[in-house]
Amino acid sequence: MFFHRQELQFKATPDQPDAVYARKLQEVLGGQYGEITVAMQYMFQGWNMHIPGKYRDLVFGIGAEEFGHVEMLATMIAQLLEKSPLGITEEAVQSDPAVAAVVGGTDMQHAIVAGAGARPFDSMGNPWQGAYVTASGNLLADFTSNANAEMQGRVQVARLYHMTDDSGVRDMLAFLLARDTMHQNQWLAAAAELREQGAEELPVPSNFPLNKEHREVSYQYLNFSDGQRASEGPWASGPTPDGKGEFSYHEGPTTNAPMPPPTHPDARFYGTTELPNTMEKMAGATQDKLKKE
Amino acid sequence: MFFHRQELQFKATPDQPDAVYARKLQEVLGGQYGEITVAMQYMFQGWNMHIPGKYRDLVFGIGAEEFGHVEMLATMIAQLLEKSPLGITEEAVQSDPAVAAVVGGTDMQHAIVAGAGARPFDSMGNPWQGAYVTASGNLLADFTSNANAEMQGRVQVARLYHMTDDSGVRDMLAFLLARDTMHQNQWLAAAAELREQGAEELPVPSNFPLNKEHREVSYQYLNFSDGQRASEGPWASGPTPDGKGEFSYHEGPTTNAPMPPPTHPDARFYGTTELPNTMEKMAGATQDKLKKE
Amino acid sequence: MFFHRQELQFKATPDQPDAVYARKLQEVLGGQYGEITVAMQYMFQGWNMHIPGKYRDLVFGIGAEEFGHVEMLATMIAQLLEKSPLGITEEAVQSDPAVAAVVGGTDMQHAIVAGAGARPFDSMGNPWQGAYVTASGNLLADFTSNANAEMQGRVQVARLYHMTDDSGVRDMLAFLLARDTMHQNQWLAAAAELREQGAEELPVPSNFPLNKEHREVSYQYLNFSDGQRASEGPWASGPTPDGKGEFSYHEGPTTNAPMPPPTHPDARFYGTTELPNTMEKMAGATQDKLKKE
Amino acid sequence: MFFHRQELQFKATPDQPDAVYARKLQEVLGGQYGEITVAMQYMFQGWNMHIPGKYRDLVFGIGAEEFGHVEMLATMIAQLLEKSPLGITEEAVQSDPAVAAVVGGTDMQHAIVAGAGARPFDSMGNPWQGAYVTASGNLLADFTSNANAEMQGRVQVARLYHMTDDSGVRDMLAFLLARDTMHQNQWLAAAAELREQGAEELPVPSNFPLNKEHREVSYQYLNFSDGQRASEGPWASGPTPDGKGEFSYHEGPTTNAPMPPPTHPDARFYGTTELPNTMEKMAGATQDKLKKE
Amino acid sequence: MFFHRQELQFKATPDQPDAVYARKLQEVLGGQYGEITVAMQYMFQGWNMHIPGKYRDLVFGIGAEEFGHVEMLATMIAQLLEKSPLGITEEAVQSDPAVAAVVGGTDMQHAIVAGAGARPFDSMGNPWQGAYVTASGNLLADFTSNANAEMQGRVQVARLYHMTDDSGVRDMLAFLLARDTMHQNQWLAAAAELREQGAEELPVPSNFPLNKEHREVSYQYLNFSDGQRASEGPWASGPTPDGKGEFSYHEGPTTNAPMPPPTHPDARFYGTTELPNTMEKMAGATQDKLKKE
Amino acid sequence: MFFHRQELQFKATPDQPDAVYARKLQEVLGGQYGEITVAMQYMFQGWNMHIPGKYRDLVFGIGAEEFGHVEMLATMIAQLLEKSPLGITEEAVQSDPAVAAVVGGTDMQHAIVAGAGARPFDSMGNPWQGAYVTASGNLLADFTSNANAEMQGRVQVARLYHMTDDSGVRDMLAFLLARDTMHQNQWLAAAAELREQGAEELPVPSNFPLNKEHREVSYQYLNFSDGQRASEGPWASGPTPDGKGEFSYHEGPTTNAPMPPPTHPDARFYGTTELPNTMEKMAGATQDKLKKE
Repeated sequence: MFFHRQELQFKATPDQPDAVYARKLQEVLGGQYGEITVAMQYMFQGWNMHIPGKYRDLVFGIGAEEFGHVEMLATMIAQLLEKSPLGITEEAVQSDPAVAAVVGGTDMQHAIVAGAGARPFDSMGNPWQGAYVTASGNLLADFTSNANAEMQGRVQVARLYHMTDDSGVRDMLAFLLARDTMHQNQWLAAAAELREQGAEELPVPSNFPLNKEHREVSYQYLNFSDGQRASEGPWASGPTPDGKGEFSYHEGPTTNAPMPPPTHPDARFYGTTELPNTMEKMAGATQDKLKKE
Repeated sequence: MFFHRQELQFKATPDQPDAVYARKLQEVLGGQYGEITVAMQYMFQGWNMHIPGKYRDLVFGIGAEEFGHVEMLATMIAQLLEKSPLGITEEAVQSDPAVAAVVGGTDMQHAIVAGAGARPFDSMGNPWQGAYVTASGNLLADFTSNANAEMQGRVQVARLYHMTDDSGVRDMLAFLLARDTMHQNQWLAAAAELREQGAEELPVPSNFPLNKEHREVSYQYLNFSDGQRASEGPWASGPTPDGKGEFSYHEGPTTNAPMPPPTHPDARFYGTTELPNTMEKMAGATQDKLKKE
Repeated sequence: MFFHRQELQFKATPDQPDAVYARKLQEVLGGQYGEITVAMQYMFQGWNMHIPGKYRDLVFGIGAEEFGHVEMLATMIAQLLEKSPLGITEEAVQSDPAVAAVVGGTDMQHAIVAGAGARPFDSMGNPWQGAYVTASGNLLADFTSNANAEMQGRVQVARLYHMTDDSGVRDMLAFLLARDTMHQNQWLAAAAELREQGAEELPVPSNFPLNKEHREVSYQYLNFSDGQRASEGPWASGPTPDGKGEFSYHEGPTTNAPMPPPTHPDARFYGTTELPNTMEKMAGATQDKLKKE
Repeated sequence: MFFHRQELQFKATPDQPDAVYARKLQEVLGGQYGEITVAMQYMFQGWNMHIPGKYRDLVFGIGAEEFGHVEMLATMIAQLLEKSPLGITEEAVQSDPAVAAVVGGTDMQHAIVAGAGARPFDSMGNPWQGAYVTASGNLLADFTSNANAEMQGRVQVARLYHMTDDSGVRDMLAFLLARDTMHQNQWLAAAAELREQGAEELPVPSNFPLNKEHREVSYQYLNFSDGQRASEGPWASGPTPDGKGEFSYHEGPTTNAPMPPPTHPDARFYGTTELPNTMEKMAGATQDKLKKE
Repeated sequence: MFFHRQELQFKATPDQPDAVYARKLQEVLGGQYGEITVAMQYMFQGWNMHIPGKYRDLVFGIGAEEFGHVEMLATMIAQLLEKSPLGITEEAVQSDPAVAAVVGGTDMQHAIVAGAGARPFDSMGNPWQGAYVTASGNLLADFTSNANAEMQGRVQVARLYHMTDDSGVRDMLAFLLARDTMHQNQWLAAAAELREQGAEELPVPSNFPLNKEHREVSYQYLNFSDGQRASEGPWASGPTPDGKGEFSYHEGPTTNAPMPPPTHPDARFYGTTELPNTMEKMAGATQDKLKKE
Repeated sequence: MFFHRQELQFKATPDQPDAVYARKLQEVLGGQYGEITVAMQYMFQGWNMHIPGKYRDLVFGIGAEEFGHVEMLATMIAQLLEKSPLGITEEAVQSDPAVAAVVGGTDMQHAIVAGAGARPFDSMGNPWQGAYVTASGNLLADFTSNANAEMQGRVQVARLYHMTDDSGVRDMLAFLLARDTMHQNQWLAAAAELREQGAEELPVPSNFPLNKEHREVSYQYLNFSDGQRASEGPWASGPTPDGKGEFSYHEGPTTNAPMPPPTHPDARFYGTTELPNTMEKMAGATQDKLKKE
């Protein structure tokens, strides 16, 4: 169950309206790596988790905080839009290129659809979608996904920090940046613990019997491009992070197989098959089948 | 530039047809963590990269291999579909529940749209989409995204391994599993090197001046759920992975702020505002504005 | 801010596994009218609301409950999937059409992607999307949208009730049906109050000056199909619900206008324009422009 | 069957070009509540309707009109784009910020894809989608959906009215506003008649036996947020609109249940389960199963 | 304007219910090449057309017919669903694998969302979308798109013909196949006339001055794969269809250029740039900029 | 398998930055008819092809080239963005409407998400999707689709040519225009050969027995709009392109059928059926069924 409190975790009030910036903030509200994504992702990880205790408490404990971040951003966006020129006709607007530029750079649906309100969409107007969520049940994979989400999110917030000089907005972003710092550290600590305790190891999933994979290509760097400096990296020689092998470097594939011949499905799919002479035979076969129907 | 060779990296031929399994394989071809995703993701990371040399060679070198995995899967899918019952009417089919079950479990578009061919879609029929791709320009964030993609992908392939006992299919999956093992190791090695060399550190992005974030909440575990066992984890006390702080644990938020008052945008957005008495005044104002137009 | 409690609002445990039914339940979790939709919709209405007090408390108070319903459904789905045949190979499975039928009717991503877990998707595998949310700022419009959402939702839950005889599942649905009953009543009561108090009236938005619309067609039933029994309805004669007019019935349109002539945008858009003779002249003009470049 | 007449229902000609406004108009053509939505929605309701006569004539009669509104808007948009600067290079354009602002605010695909033509998309460039359509077969639910669609649509058109001072555009909008007034009234009249005649009652669907739902929570207002003013509304006390109960007000839930224990699906899904000691046992079990394969 | 007549263009009544087939028919109603696509496509081509007369009459004349085909299919689908087992529980159903197979193969939303009705979706449950529509304003391109749509559509209908032996369904499909035959012929005839009259020629768009393209590569077959039999085709030697050149065949590219060096955007985007030493300098520069803010 | 070479097929370097133009170029990279579409389309046609030899070599040979065009565009876009104002705050930016106009017209995700990099999206920010791909297995249909794609693509590139005067960009577009010229010619040549050799004929699919379609309507132009000039076209009289009939022209349909009566699915779908009196009877039936449960 969820309980809502009509307070924010941190102050979210801009100094002045800025409709274009409101649109930009939508990215970290409703984008691929926005707050709706992490809120939903952590909750679904909790609901799908196969293990009680600290890991489930962890995803629930943070997931609920992230819904509060959605709220902070939505509240901020509505305020940024409150007094902005959103395309409502005024004489001044028409003749002022600066105002025209602002209107041109806004999210049109902020005005037309939401009446100066926030939306569960990204900065280019794409609706948030469940396909952004990762919750596989494998915790090492999922915590790595979480670490990535917090990294991408913090990169985006850092960029947004430099796209405004509104001190109220920056203050809120400074708070979100700090929380992203926490969450990056937290997921990496949790992932490290999983590996230390042997709950999951590399390669993920670690329970899959390694002897069932083709071990001869498990640590080969195969270079399919013509730049060769990748041979200099720690992924091309030396021990592997999973502690189970040694990297080696190879130009191109070390295995190959001929392409299987083209398929010939039932003639009634009407794919083009052989050239005329053969066609006639096949068509004959088809006609026979068709006559039966 | 890309050059295509009409060979496969590994043999991809099933022992026998299986249209339901062909549908399942679509997940690792065209799903969120399928081969199209990693192929496109690594290539876009290369095109957006700000640094020449080994890292760019790395993403190009692997990205091209992944396009070859798309090809292996597409080829396998077409063969699995070649002789399968895909709903083409035969007397026998209609009265056989086993065949009906197979037809019911297939991807309908395999038959109707592709004529027993593969498609750039996932196992539930959603088209692959560019929104699955991550290429931020920040390599530590992106390599973490890559490690996650290879983990999720290997988990999915491992599951698929147990959903068939076709030795031809399993042979191909055993190859893909090994390559996923390589790629997991590789991205983690690359991420570690970035940190060791100081090219990127935690928190990502590491160049953003830490004094600009609200450092007092940068290492606080804030528990917004009522389970308290998260306090036992390495994310709740002790040094942080970024080496710059100490975790602390707190029940609920350590900061709070009142919600700002509701916004009152231009009356011509026709949002509902105050109750009747106030409404009249506002309506008056609106009428005045409207009369001007 | 949101706080999570590790309890459910109502018991959500099935008597036995049923993977096909788990897929069906995804509709009311992540579909157009599923619980994610109403949870998000009410919250965004709150964040965009221009009026403090009881209406905002109302949307916040119910919105948080709906997130709890998402949780109940996700929990139920995971349990329905726990012991179900999800395609994992067993000898017995292969030869049993009943099991094959079950596997064929499941959400393939439940097994491959989520490892027997719930997902923010609908019953046909479409991801939940922000475009399902309505929050316009106009409360009479939005409460009507809410009433509709609760009606559609209750219709779907009622249908689902008859698609299982699992008493545990039915018990949970019986709870959700009752809450939908409440919420239908509640939104209609709230909409009625808005009208009674004059905060919003018909037609919505009521502040838009009626004299600016073409009043002569404001109450005309215009019949564009050839069935004429619509003339018998209360929308074809008698007073209108907004109390401002009388319905009248008309066969076809009462107004018409010629289609404007085709447009002729800049020739450099390369749309096909006039037939050859004219083309030459236009092409000449184009050539002139192009030469300038 | 549909027959097309090369006339418009109302004049749709702008005074002057305005490419940014053309983009805005796309919202009411191809957006969530645009004319394509209502046209398709009413027609699908007709095709799915279980009852002949006046209701089916009603949805067919209006649905066909709405396709004509799509046409009016598409025609208007093409004219607004006809002579607009759409990014075609001219010296003047480059140095004039006002023109640059206009170009920046346009729908890029109007120029690049449609060559100054209209598109089945909304104002932010999202394609119209079938998921906007509601046609459940339950007429009280569907007519409420229709009333909502006409309300949201009229709110959007009213906003658009103030975003231009082009008298030709406003004239067309004044017509559409009037038709929206009609359609709001019509659907509410139809919904009221359904209830009066007992064809459908509250709660929808009214045929579902009420004794099968948990009646004890059917009229409880449960407050999951901390604002308490919702207790003052007509949804918190007094008789319910369905005439079958009395509202009551409660802080938080009146029922609760423990979360069920985490699920433990087949180990071959490779979700992370218990901590190491337990893991070993489970892994053993898994190994046993795997050996069998 | 559109007028609807409550008749069908052809009889659309099945002999017996078949819910799985109903799902399959959704493909040609609401899929990429379904009837909604062609109906919308021809109408948008009409609204965007720059030329009055026979071509506009043509797209309007056929577009309206296609809406009638949507209606035939929707009507058929509702009837196929009317008496089908759609998952409503009956004792018999549960134990009968044949019925379970049917239910598993249905569109779940047909039952849960539409109550045994048709939907604007394809056979895998994807909503129809405006992105399927092509209307560029260039008639030779668009008529080629139309010919393709009618070909793909007829291929799909032909496949569907063999997936049922219901004589009522086949009768309707036999009608649609004939109309697709007409429309293929028609668009090819129209495209040929455009070329004969010189309204559009090859290459499309024909008004773009050919001397502005790099003519030296305009007729070169460049082989980027290692199969060489493409050299045997009429696209590898001989005169070109546009009558303006001669095909030639080449292994691989005939031109090449070095990749430009990686970009170095503003440091405040926090992309990873140079290795540590350089990083320090850049970070210094960033710090300077940041201090200013 | 695919091999990547770190060279471009043609020089792709702009003279100067232009972020708005970078956004426009996204259309031909990741739009409906962008380079990703043709690259994927030709490859999937190859993987699904039922015939070895020159046709398969053809699609593979060109498909790989198209991936190289994706690379050229991505490289160009990154360079156009490198030094552009992307919304990073500088004093100058705020007061300069020209810069504001540029920022307003950019793809917001170029800056926030990709850090001045390219993305697999179109010019309005929609992700590229697998639903753009056509690969039916029928070569005449698919080559017609390919011809259309190259035509639409060349129209778009030609439009883009006039939206910039950057000589570096124009040089690259001049190359792409030439390649589109080649590919249009090539697909038309290949389609013509298929017909000449009888591998496929009109109507597509040519193997479907014509006597199974309703031949009486196979060549009728049926006019469903009221403009009559379509009667003047070569599609309204004379021999048909398939050489198997004569066109004829008709006002409206030549066949018709009554709409079938409304469906009455199981009462437990809770669709609204008959009016009250009948309702009672049906409700009775429903109650009976419900009591059994």
